[in-house]
Amino acid sequence: MKPKLINSIEEMSTVCRQLKGKIGFVPTMGFLHAGHLSLVSEAKRKTDIVIVSIYVNPTQFSANEDLSSYPRNIERDIELLTNLDVDYIFFPTDEQMYPDGYKTWLNVDKITQVLCGRSRPTHFRGVITIVAKLMNIIDPDLMFMGEKDFQQLVVLKQMIKDLNFRTKIVGCPIIREKDGLALSSRNKYLSYSGRKKALCLNKSLLLAQKLFNRGIISSNKIISQMTDLIEENECIIDYIEVFDQNTLEHIPKLISGSRIALAVIVENTRLIDNIKIL
Amino acid sequence: MKPKLINSIEEMSTVCRQLKGKIGFVPTMGFLHAGHLSLVSEAKRKTDIVIVSIYVNPTQFSANEDLSSYPRNIERDIELLTNLDVDYIFFPTDEQMYPDGYKTWLNVDKITQVLCGRSRPTHFRGVITIVAKLMNIIDPDLMFMGEKDFQQLVVLKQMIKDLNFRTKIVGCPIIREKDGLALSSRNKYLSYSGRKKALCLNKSLLLAQKLFNRGIISSNKIISQMTDLIEENECIIDYIEVFDQNTLEHIPKLISGSRIALAVIVENTRLIDNIKIL
Repeated sequence: MKPKLINSIEEMSTVCRQLKGKIGFVPTMGFLHAGHLSLVSEAKRKTDIVIVSIYVNPTQFSANEDLSSYPRNIERDIELLTNLDVDYIFFPTDEQMYPDGYKTWLNVDKITQVLCGRSRPTHFRGVITIVAKLMNIIDPDLMFMGEKDFQQLVVLKQMIKDLNFRTKIVGCPIIREKDGLALSSRNKYLSYSGRKKALCLNKSLLLAQKLFNRGIISSNKIISQMTDLIEENECIIDYIEVFDQNTLEHIPKLISGSRIALAVIVENTRLIDNIKIL
Repeated sequence: MKPKLINSIEEMSTVCRQLKGKIGFVPTMGFLHAGHLSLVSEAKRKTDIVIVSIYVNPTQFSANEDLSSYPRNIERDIELLTNLDVDYIFFPTDEQMYPDGYKTWLNVDKITQVLCGRSRPTHFRGVITIVAKLMNIIDPDLMFMGEKDFQQLVVLKQMIKDLNFRTKIVGCPIIREKDGLALSSRNKYLSYSGRKKALCLNKSLLLAQKLFNRGIISSNKIISQMTDLIEENECIIDYIEVFDQNTLEHIPKLISGSRIALAVIVENTRLIDNIKIL
């Protein structure tokens, strides 16, 4: 059956309050790929009613970022979600989400200032705020998010815990192309040669695991070799960081369970990826 | 019947999710007076289940304020709430509300920076954050708050609207002693002569109404006469402000429906009061 499309906040909220059964929620910015669809499938497995939101949230983009060019294809998204038997698609307008005179913001200290927060200082404020709004509208039991935006996952878990939201987050593994490139709506921006260069993100993470397997545990040494690999591919590093995956704090020496994340600019596109060191 | 006392967030949240009927919520910092009790009575009238929280929220006090000396009397509070047939009293601990590593804050732009926000720059951040937490735990249909903290009422209404909380705020009128002093837990700090001086807050507001009735509409002229009256009583003015009661923006000329608010230091106690000009 085709999912019910809802664009009114009022209607979505009323519908959700009347639903019986466990609500699973997958927030997205649309232009869905297999990564999103894996979240939806997991939601279908774990809950009774699945709601997917499609909303390109303007407040998580800064003025110099790609809000206006961010890829959109709502017809195709609806088709994909219909195939997965999603119950509701929520796609509100900017005017509803941020009406004139909008003034309220959420923020999480410290862990929003590191990693992606350094080059995108207002990004997480926008993410946290929109997710709090969506949780209030939908009141889901479980919310499904990918580990590709690993910092986002940690930040939102902290927010949910701190503010006593009843929703639990389910983190889901990164989905990759066969050649290892992590799926991202922004991959669409890449040229043929850019697409090849972009493999250096995943390759450098696999290199880190290989070095760790050989007994190299110095974060600096590992980052240095990852840097070489990425720069050989003519990509520009925003950051490479080795950190504790609960606190996001830098660690000088890797242990099993540490995480390495990176942001790299390929052509003009900023891509992110990460790995849990085993 | 005695209200059920709950101090665990987990338990309060679970209980609230299972309640049938309209939930009315009155957040307080305890040391209840007739002002609080009027909110509880209104909640009893308008809802099926009434929950009162008693929690002296540390994050709305700044370092130089009266957190440690803020008056407390939980036994008396329970007695008063038992008399009013309240269903649940929620009194969590600081350790539960702000556990180690707590990091999340809400804020509302602009309207938290004026009036009380000028001399208490972090106050509203604390208020908004704790109220969001309490709303997430209790999920009330209606929340009852007094108009004495008029700015708080406006700020929380904005936050609830912006973040799509389903809860509606019911603003309730200021309750006064027979001689006009607005009820406040902080009145307890006043000496016998301070108690008399404190009447100048309400008197100056009534003077404003009288001047307006006589055709004087200049905010400056009215504030000037209020200032004289307060200073004659050896009290120190933090602010006197004439503003639009929806936007909290200063207005140079009073109209019917404008609000005047003031904060005045009597002895060492900062008191607030306000009036809607009719």
